[in-house]
Amino acid sequence: MKAPKVTFFHAPQSRSRGTLALLEELGVDYDLHLIDLKAGTQRDPAYLALNPLGKVPAVRHEGAMVTEQPAVMMYLADLYPEKGLAPAIGDPLRGPYLRWMVFYGSCFEPALVDHSMQREPAPHATSPYGTWQEVLDAIVTQLTPGPWLLGERFTAADVLWGTALHWTTMFKLVPELPPVREYIDRVRARPAMQRAEAKDAQFLASQA
Amino acid sequence: MKAPKVTFFHAPQSRSRGTLALLEELGVDYDLHLIDLKAGTQRDPAYLALNPLGKVPAVRHEGAMVTEQPAVMMYLADLYPEKGLAPAIGDPLRGPYLRWMVFYGSCFEPALVDHSMQREPAPHATSPYGTWQEVLDAIVTQLTPGPWLLGERFTAADVLWGTALHWTTMFKLVPELPPVREYIDRVRARPAMQRAEAKDAQFLASQA
Ligand SMILES: N[C@@H](CCC(=O)N[C@@H](CS)C(=O)NCC(=O)O)C(=O)O
Ligand SMILES: N[C@@H](CCC(=O)N[C@@H](CS)C(=O)NCC(=O)O)C(=O)O
Repeated sequence: MKAPKVTFFHAPQSRSRGTLALLEELGVDYDLHLIDLKAGTQRDPAYLALNPLGKVPAVRHEGAMVTEQPAVMMYLADLYPEKGLAPAIGDPLRGPYLRWMVFYGSCFEPALVDHSMQREPAPHATSPYGTWQEVLDAIVTQLTPGPWLLGERFTAADVLWGTALHWTTMFKLVPELPPVREYIDRVRARPAMQRAEAKDAQFLASQA
Repeated sequence: MKAPKVTFFHAPQSRSRGTLALLEELGVDYDLHLIDLKAGTQRDPAYLALNPLGKVPAVRHEGAMVTEQPAVMMYLADLYPEKGLAPAIGDPLRGPYLRWMVFYGSCFEPALVDHSMQREPAPHATSPYGTWQEVLDAIVTQLTPGPWLLGERFTAADVLWGTALHWTTMFKLVPELPPVREYIDRVRARPAMQRAEAKDAQFLASQA
């Protein structure tokens, strides 16, 4: 365990759920700073001073703020190498791990926004993600060998993708093809993921 | 120097220019695989088998493919720690470094696509980047202390942002505010950046 502790800025039932789950998987202690999206506390000047976009997730550690879900997760997973949730630098899985962490924010989220708003992507050569179908196909191909995104090894990338595919299939944005459905179930069956879901329900209730 | 060498998939005058510049900054040897975007060689079945989205940049190293510009750059910079272009894990700059690498693909590019297509962003709470103005303000604020994105230390994040701000100001997508203009000039004045620009012009000519 490193000192000082991480401060975690979290809003229940939001994109920061994945980070909550990663902290459970890491089993580390942290200071929780709850944000109430409905009440708009993400726009409090004190929070905007730390994170000008007023977004969650974010963590503060040793005076530095880290924002952007994939960055926050890569940061935390590397901070606790003994937990084994990030392939180390030099490990053959390091490259694929970085690729799929970044692919989430650079390709999947923009594709999802366009798809959910029923907008055309930019022309192929300039669209950062190509097409929605290409993105879906790439994900299904990657998940098919299993059991995890990178094969035999469970990593922080599974926390990110398992959580994201859970809510995007629930909202019927991503089709529930068998490799996707089985992958989500496998991730959600993990005790740490179940603890995170239970905690998040409590956090939400505390804001009612 | 690590063996085996990195293979770099590159198209002249494209988003892979930043990776070309990073390889110059690192001063490492690599195998170059040129892609001709006009001729459409990014859709060759052999390349699609390696990278199903048919995009550059990409690198192959020890059998693993890495795609997504920020991931490729983080991978390469970590691979050669003796070059000092990535704050090491545990360095107080590591978090901000990851944040700004991911912010590029998760916020700046989607914001840029919407802005250049004159589309409204998604509603604020769901837009991954908030608004175009928030993204610009965050970048200008971050660049203002200088001389580099993370302060006194030049990193791979400057290769990414210097290159990206160069072409986006050239196309008048990003306004040339003084901190932005001075930053671009500072990055482009580096000998490695100039070598990369010269090499890229040659690569382009070779495809004419
Ligand atoms: N690019 C950010 C997006 C995060 C994001 O949009 N979070 C939402 C919650 S799901 C948020 O904080 N919305 C509050 C708002 O924009 O007011 C990331 O990947 O972390
Ligand atoms: N999300 C990718 C986007 C890369 C990208 O779109 N590259 C363009 C060149 S600027 C490309 O390869 N276009 C070829 C095509 O889509 O056919 C990244 O960040 O690396």
